[in-house]
Amino acid sequence: MREVAIIGVGMTEFGELWDKSLRDLLVESSLKAMDDAKVDAVDAIYVGAMSSGLFDNQEHLASIAADYLGMVGVPATRCESACISGSLAFKGAFLDVASGYSDIVLVTGVEKMTDVSGDKAVAGLSTAADDEFEGYNGVTFPGLYAMIANAHMKKYGTTRRQLSLVAVKNHANALKNPNAQFRMKVTPEAVEGSVMIADPLHILDCSPITDGAASVVVAPLELAKEKFAHHKIVKVIGLGHATGTIALHSREDITELDAVVKAGERAYKMAGLGPDDIDFAELHDCFTIAEICELEALGFCAKGEGGLMTERGETLPDGKIPINISGGLKAKGHPVGATGVSQIIELVEQIRGDAGDRQLKKADIGLAQNLGGSGGSSIVTILKGLGSRV
Amino acid sequence: MREVAIIGVGMTEFGELWDKSLRDLLVESSLKAMDDAKVDAVDAIYVGAMSSGLFDNQEHLASIAADYLGMVGVPATRCESACISGSLAFKGAFLDVASGYSDIVLVTGVEKMTDVSGDKAVAGLSTAADDEFEGYNGVTFPGLYAMIANAHMKKYGTTRRQLSLVAVKNHANALKNPNAQFRMKVTPEAVEGSVMIADPLHILDCSPITDGAASVVVAPLELAKEKFAHHKIVKVIGLGHATGTIALHSREDITELDAVVKAGERAYKMAGLGPDDIDFAELHDCFTIAEICELEALGFCAKGEGGLMTERGETLPDGKIPINISGGLKAKGHPVGATGVSQIIELVEQIRGDAGDRQLKKADIGLAQNLGGSGGSSIVTILKGLGSRV
Repeated sequence: MREVAIIGVGMTEFGELWDKSLRDLLVESSLKAMDDAKVDAVDAIYVGAMSSGLFDNQEHLASIAADYLGMVGVPATRCESACISGSLAFKGAFLDVASGYSDIVLVTGVEKMTDVSGDKAVAGLSTAADDEFEGYNGVTFPGLYAMIANAHMKKYGTTRRQLSLVAVKNHANALKNPNAQFRMKVTPEAVEGSVMIADPLHILDCSPITDGAASVVVAPLELAKEKFAHHKIVKVIGLGHATGTIALHSREDITELDAVVKAGERAYKMAGLGPDDIDFAELHDCFTIAEICELEALGFCAKGEGGLMTERGETLPDGKIPINISGGLKAKGHPVGATGVSQIIELVEQIRGDAGDRQLKKADIGLAQNLGGSGGSSIVTILKGLGSRV
Repeated sequence: MREVAIIGVGMTEFGELWDKSLRDLLVESSLKAMDDAKVDAVDAIYVGAMSSGLFDNQEHLASIAADYLGMVGVPATRCESACISGSLAFKGAFLDVASGYSDIVLVTGVEKMTDVSGDKAVAGLSTAADDEFEGYNGVTFPGLYAMIANAHMKKYGTTRRQLSLVAVKNHANALKNPNAQFRMKVTPEAVEGSVMIADPLHILDCSPITDGAASVVVAPLELAKEKFAHHKIVKVIGLGHATGTIALHSREDITELDAVVKAGERAYKMAGLGPDDIDFAELHDCFTIAEICELEALGFCAKGEGGLMTERGETLPDGKIPINISGGLKAKGHPVGATGVSQIIELVEQIRGDAGDRQLKKADIGLAQNLGGSGGSSIVTILKGLGSRV
């Protein structure tokens, strides 16, 4: 297997982007990443999008990307696995380069969600759950995660305030991210006083509906060292992917995200590292409770102690392991297909030392964890910086 | 790059399968292929499906596959590129194995299309076209291919009768395929007397709406030789993938399927072969005119002579190069995501000598060509049999 590096990153602002279409977003972010990499052509394109069919009436989206980027002819692949579609596209590109089939590969995650009415957006998102059981009976994701939160609170004594502190931290982090959708400070009281969505989750526990795109360019490590050393080289050292049961009712313990545990174990094994070796991480905080469960699933704390770890401030920018320094899905926004790629971009920018006001002091090894549905799939990616800027 | 072999194949019947759900189809065909390969576990799953979101309200389909196959935990990826979704899933599996990341990989293409009303099926399919121009203005695929047919007839003198002969041949071939949706003989007069859909295309020029699934299991060639030699080994020797402009109006000459030309060139180059070396082929005859254009695009005849080649009988089972011995999309049926995988299955069965009444005398090297939309993407796969049955 050839080693793989990330040689370019770029993204659009995340938000309600009324003046930008699905294809505008695709093109803008792709060109930014290609500019950053200083390439004007690629061997292949991977697009991550969850539901451009349901949100925008447009399947066959990878061909749209090639066409509207002026690269007709280039092989283009769309990958979908609900909210991990972006990371899945990244995995496709990784394997394409690792195999030796392609050299320079563009990955773009995208979702244009605000052009449809709110109920259609929610209905579209709920196709990531088990349609025959969960969807058919009318449960949507806030309801599913509320069940997880209640179970976690009951089993481990996780508190309402601990949930709030996840939102408080991620909103505070987003203040320093110019691409974030919600650059506003929130207090625990604001979270707990915001409208109730599905008890115990208030609206400020939930990630928003967002438009946006995020892109990276990957290449073989050796080629990156030779030709693309204008940035610090960022190498993919771990990539783990796993599924979980699609429906919540099939799980023995709904406080456990088995897909994250397995994806993490696979990524750690490939990297030859453990949780203690990770300097910082982007976790999939689609709801505040998700970040707490993921801290546990990835071994950053013991089972049941994710809330406590948060309360102790260990996940703050100056804590033991800074989590979601980008603002996370919670405050940066969650354009579904783009999310996984945007997590990887945050890792690259931190590792390069290009994260501006958000820059962490120690950011050599970063981990990104992306989650599909209520835990039906997960991908964990571990990146490491090599050498110094040239 | 590791060499890759196909060690198992299996599919459901294609047709209006009212008693089988999307997940029933996924499971039935996957288990058949795993049985054929004699494996009870796989390292990864790839699912090809165009629009399970629009047809069945279910995205996140690869996790459904892992879950309902009793393989929760196994990484599962869905690939989509309109009608080449099946071949794209196969390409994903190929790269996964070629890279050394995974060993035994299951690929399942599936589409459940008859559970939605006819207009919703047509609307779903039209998301494979350019929604902002073609879809928005109400053109659907029969209309797009009718424009191609008219242009081809005008430019090259292709006749209405030549179109009919594609349908006549593929329906005759399907008589010998127990999995085909339409096992009925048709005459040129029947085609030309059938209801007009989009002039000059009658309903018997069009592939049907179909339910079905098709699966293959792939493995590294060396492992296949060592452990899976209970069937003749079938090796992937060429795999080419290309995009074309998504919209018909962007093409200089709509009689040219550039994506097929490029995908074919890439597959031939990888295999070190040319069109004369191919013993038989499965082409993407979504409409009769498509098969004619593809004969030309792949170099089986000169540009403009696809109709003539058909009329001469050169694509019949005993002709120069038998085309769509399975019955093709036209008569075997076209469950979109399953189609590309089912083409590969026909190649494997012919190469193994397991094609029953359809068995060709010379079937060592086969080519499968899958087409997305009106030519927005294409994948060409070339397979070769190694050694003899043990």
